[in-house]
This record gives sequence, C-alpha cells and structure tokens, in this order.
Amino acid sequence: MPFIEWKDGQVRFLDQRRLPLEEVYIETSDVRVLAEAMRTLQVRGAPALGIAAGFGMALGALAYRGTDAAEFLRHLSMVDELLSSTRPTAVNLFWALRRIRKTVYQSGPADIRTLRDRILREALAIMEEDVETCRVIGEHGSEIISPGVGIMTYCNAGALATGGIGTALGIIIQAHREGKSIRVYACETRPLFQGARLTMWELARAGVDATLITDNAAATVMRQGKVQVVITGADRIAANGDTANKIGTYPLAVLARQHRIPMYIAAPVSTFDPGLRDGSSSPIEERSHTEVTDIAGIRVAPRDVAVFSPAFDVTPHQFISGIITERGILRPPFGKAIQRLMPDIPERR
Amino acid sequence: MPFIEWKDGQVRFLDQRRLPLEEVYIETSDVRVLAEAMRTLQVRGAPALGIAAGFGMALGALAYRGTDAAEFLRHLSMVDELLSSTRPTAVNLFWALRRIRKTVYQSGPADIRTLRDRILREALAIMEEDVETCRVIGEHGSEIISPGVGIMTYCNAGALATGGIGTALGIIIQAHREGKSIRVYACETRPLFQGARLTMWELARAGVDATLITDNAAATVMRQGKVQVVITGADRIAANGDTANKIGTYPLAVLARQHRIPMYIAAPVSTFDPGLRDGSSSPIEERSHTEVTDIAGIRVAPRDVAVFSPAFDVTPHQFISGIITERGILRPPFGKAIQRLMPDIPERR
Repeated sequence: MPFIEWKDGQVRFLDQRRLPLEEVYIETSDVRVLAEAMRTLQVRGAPALGIAAGFGMALGALAYRGTDAAEFLRHLSMVDELLSSTRPTAVNLFWALRRIRKTVYQSGPADIRTLRDRILREALAIMEEDVETCRVIGEHGSEIISPGVGIMTYCNAGALATGGIGTALGIIIQAHREGKSIRVYACETRPLFQGARLTMWELARAGVDATLITDNAAATVMRQGKVQVVITGADRIAANGDTANKIGTYPLAVLARQHRIPMYIAAPVSTFDPGLRDGSSSPIEERSHTEVTDIAGIRVAPRDVAVFSPAFDVTPHQFISGIITERGILRPPFGKAIQRLMPDIPERR
Repeated sequence: MPFIEWKDGQVRFLDQRRLPLEEVYIETSDVRVLAEAMRTLQVRGAPALGIAAGFGMALGALAYRGTDAAEFLRHLSMVDELLSSTRPTAVNLFWALRRIRKTVYQSGPADIRTLRDRILREALAIMEEDVETCRVIGEHGSEIISPGVGIMTYCNAGALATGGIGTALGIIIQAHREGKSIRVYACETRPLFQGARLTMWELARAGVDATLITDNAAATVMRQGKVQVVITGADRIAANGDTANKIGTYPLAVLARQHRIPMYIAAPVSTFDPGLRDGSSSPIEERSHTEVTDIAGIRVAPRDVAVFSPAFDVTPHQFISGIITERGILRPPFGKAIQRLMPDIPERR
C-alpha cells in the first residue's frame, strides 16, 4: 500500500509527523490541506513532494465548479502558486508542477472536464513512473552492495519519501530482498528525526538488521570499520554533481572521505537541475527555530536564543563516489555524465 | 556563586538535568544521592566530576558514626568504589579520588576526626585549585582569540562543568570580558543537548553573542566562513595527545581540518592520562539507549530498535592544533609536550 495515493477524488496520505507512534492516514479533497501537509512535513521527501504536487493540481482542478475556461486556468495558476510555495529546495516539486502545466497548455482548446481528466492522468503517471523509477534505482544500486557490508544512510529516502520502494532506502531494501546479509546504520537526522522516526520504522517493517545512531556518532561507527558504503537521497543535483540534501549530508560525505568509504547519492533523474551550474546557488530552506529548540513541545534551549537552522546542505561533487539513477550509476566527472543524461532530464521552469 | 559547593556539611549543586527550564539546587549529606546525581548527569563535566568525587569522599567520611579506625578506612574504601563506578571516562574523577586516598594514607596513624578534616580540606583544595586552573586556562586561551572571530564549541565545558569559569567556555568568557567582540556557535550536542541546554544558558547569562545549531549544521557554518576556531573540553587525554571527549568531537575535528580551521582542546593538567599510550584504549562509556530513542519521555524511534550510543569519541592527535592547559598551550608533537609536562601530571591509580 503506498503512503500517498489518489482515491475516489481525494488524496490519501500517511501523516508522517505522527510516526512511529501512530499510523494515521489523512484523506482530503482540499488542496490547501495538502499544501499545509507538505509545508509541515506530514508529506515529505523529494519524489513524494513531486507526486503530492501532481495530486494537488488534480484536487485543484476538481474543486473548480465554474464553466469559464479562462477562469479555470487562472484558478489552476493559483493552485500552482500555492503548491510551489510549500517547500523551496526539492526540485521534483517544481518539475511535477511543470509537467502538469505543460499538459494543460499543450491540450489546446479543450473543455474543463477534459483538462481535469488530463491533469489527473498526468498526476497518476508521475506516481506510476516513480514506482518504476524506484524499482530500477534499487536494482542498479544493489550492484554496489556486497553481501555482508555495513551501510550508513541518512534522513529518509524510502517508501515514505517516494511513490515506490524509495531511492537510497530502496537500494537497501532491494539488496535485502536479494538475500545479501547487510547491516544498516541509520543516522537519526536532527532536527526532525526522519532517520529515527521514519527510516528505522521502514527498516523494522522490512526486517532489515538496523541500528539507530545519533548523527554525531557516525564518525565513530565509520572509524570502527562498521560501514563500507554511505548512501543518501537528494533534493536537488546541480549540473556539476553538487548535491543539496538534508542538513547533515555534507559532513557525512566529508567523514566518509576521511575514512575511505564510498559515498553514493541515489535519486531519480527528475532531481537533477542542470540549470544550476553548481550547488552554491541552490535554494536552501531555513525552517522554524522551534524545530531546534523544542522537541514535542519540550524546550531544550533557553528562551529567545538565536538559532541557525538550514534544512539542507550542499555536498560538493568531489565528495561523491557515484550518483545512482534509473538510467544507471553516474561516475565522476559528473559534469560530463550529467550532460550525457541531458536528453532525459526534464526542462525546468 | 558556584554550581557545586560544600555548605555546612552538605554538598549543594545545581540540578543540570532541569536546565534551562528550572534552576533547582539540591543539598545532600548522602553520598549515595551525590553518586546517583553524577550517574544521571545532574552533576557533569570532567573537572566538576573531580570536585564532586572529592566532596563525595568528605560526605562519606562525615557519615561514619563509629570509632574504629580500621572500619572507617573500609567504609571510605566503599565510598571510593561507589564514586568510581559512576562514570568511567572522565579521568579527573579518578584523579580526585586518588588525591583523597593519598591524603588518607599519608596521614599515618591519625584519629578519625583528623582524617575527616584532612579529607574535607583536600576536597576543598581540589575545588579551589580548579577555580584558579580555569582562570589561567581562560587567560592562556584568550591569546588565540582574535577580536571579531567566530568560535565553535561543543557540549558544555563551562562553569557548569567545573568549579570556576570553565575550560573551553572559560576561554570564550575570558575573551568576551576582555572586550573582544566574538560570535559563538554552540552545537546542541545530541543525545543530551548539553550545548543547547547548558552552554546556551551560560552564554546568555554572560551576554555573549551566541547562536545554537544542530550538530549536523556545523559543517555548513564552517563552509560559510563563519567560524575561525573550534574549542572543546576533554574527558581524557592520552600520552600522545589523542583526546576522548563527548561523542561528536571527533567529527567536528575532521570537519575543522577540512575547512582549515584550527581545533583546540582546553583542559586542566588533571585531564591527562599519560598511562594511556593512545586513545584507542581509552575507556568509552556507552549510555542507555533511551537517551537516543526518547526525549523528555517522548519516543522518537520505533519500539525495540537496536541503538549504538557511545557517550564519547576519541579525536586523534593529528586533528588537534593545540591543547590549552593551565601550564600554557601545548603544540604538536604532543607526545613531547606532554612528556615535558609530566612532572606536573598527577599519577594515576
């Protein structure tokens, strides 16, 4: 069962904020509820944000009750703006919105019902393609996983973050299904504990041997020789391979290099942003300070302290051993490898 | 007002577990209460653990109501064992207990009252010397702080961790008092948030410009050029300079090296353990898994997951630019510098 799906004119998704304590599904026909869910990380993960954006556009299209085609397009444009504003870093979100927009404008003169159908069909296609993309990334990625290795992963790049089995975590799941005995070290991922809450939940469900560590214990685990490969997901990959991902990915890459451990990024081609020359100009979301100072409503810092809380960081391409996509594993120099992939990379707005 | 002190036959200390929400002082004449406070981190920090151990022996001596000198010594030995068992890594704890033991055994035949007095006097001396040691470390350390720099620190090596102004944080406080305009980045320090709870509290009280970050944001802050020096405390320093300190110190040192930022350790001479050839054999405490999986009673991980939670890590000496002691700043090669210091380093048991 997917953690986000289209069901009888509604979007149904697992509220990831409540994991692992409760498994609560939310069904809504209101795109504003969905947009808020994206903003508050009830729905999260770069590919899943793309899927949610597609479904959001379908919800928006359904909600229009009038008969004026021009007004319908203006309404769609507002829904597009709303969804665009939820999260700035994951490029898949903007990619999905662009796909829907293209569908609408390439439909030419069509009645509202036809447009609605096409939008929904495109949104469902984004979802279905992601399932397939994850499957193929899992297969490609599993090639680098030798039986018996220790794997470190970060944040959550699993089924919860995608429409399928996940990207980084999909590879781990695939290797496990192939019977390779692997051990996984999941970094908890401050401030929102996606590693502790979500990745550990997925790994436990899949029966994978998994150990939770604090982010700052990763270096010790590496030094003890317990990890032979690091794999994370990505939110945006620049033309030169620089990769924006959850805050904490960059130090993990530096530590992996220090301990001579290969560092892989796993992401669909829709995560590439070739319009971005390098990572230095990648938009980085800064989230609320209370995500750092308060945990489940309990303050862990004095009142009114200054906080710096970037949600993402950029790992320079020099620290990345390979980027695992549905088109195969890219190897350095990434600039050339990404250029060769260009025909497959969707345009950006 | 010190955060731990001897007062009318009792030990009075601030319950650091409740900071920053409440400032609650505990007074006790029961060494078992004090030992439990050390175990549960109500009292913490390498030098403060030495002070607490001294006061604990004084409490134990006072509690003996009999008149049999041999029985008194056996009683003291049990108290010594109790205090030794509270925390394994901070060497200052064992150093202080050894000082008290030496005082007792060098007293020769003496009545119980005299021994009690000497134990208390020695415990108070440990405290007073630490105040002075912190002051001198602050002065030496301030020399490396240029006006206007950004300083990163980790965990809490402040007044809360010592009898005086602190070690790493003492240097920051001293530089601030000298009017150097400095900016401090305090890493929150998972799992127990000593940076968020304690260091931010101390810095706010002292009026220092301080910003709280998650541990995994340190690399981004360094990359942005906001930090010119990293200073942390230490729990145990081996003969070659390898330094055991709070989990997360080692990755910070690797990241500092990567960003060409000097990494300093600040610690009193009592933190050296020249009997330890290098850090590989340093005892490393592993603490309860619930410190990682639960925060203020709220679970952030699924039930029954495996957790690896070392409380300390070892920073190899190659990553350390200097060790700031009350005897001056040691520079590489540390083996030689520490050897020159040997006459000042107390013997270990």
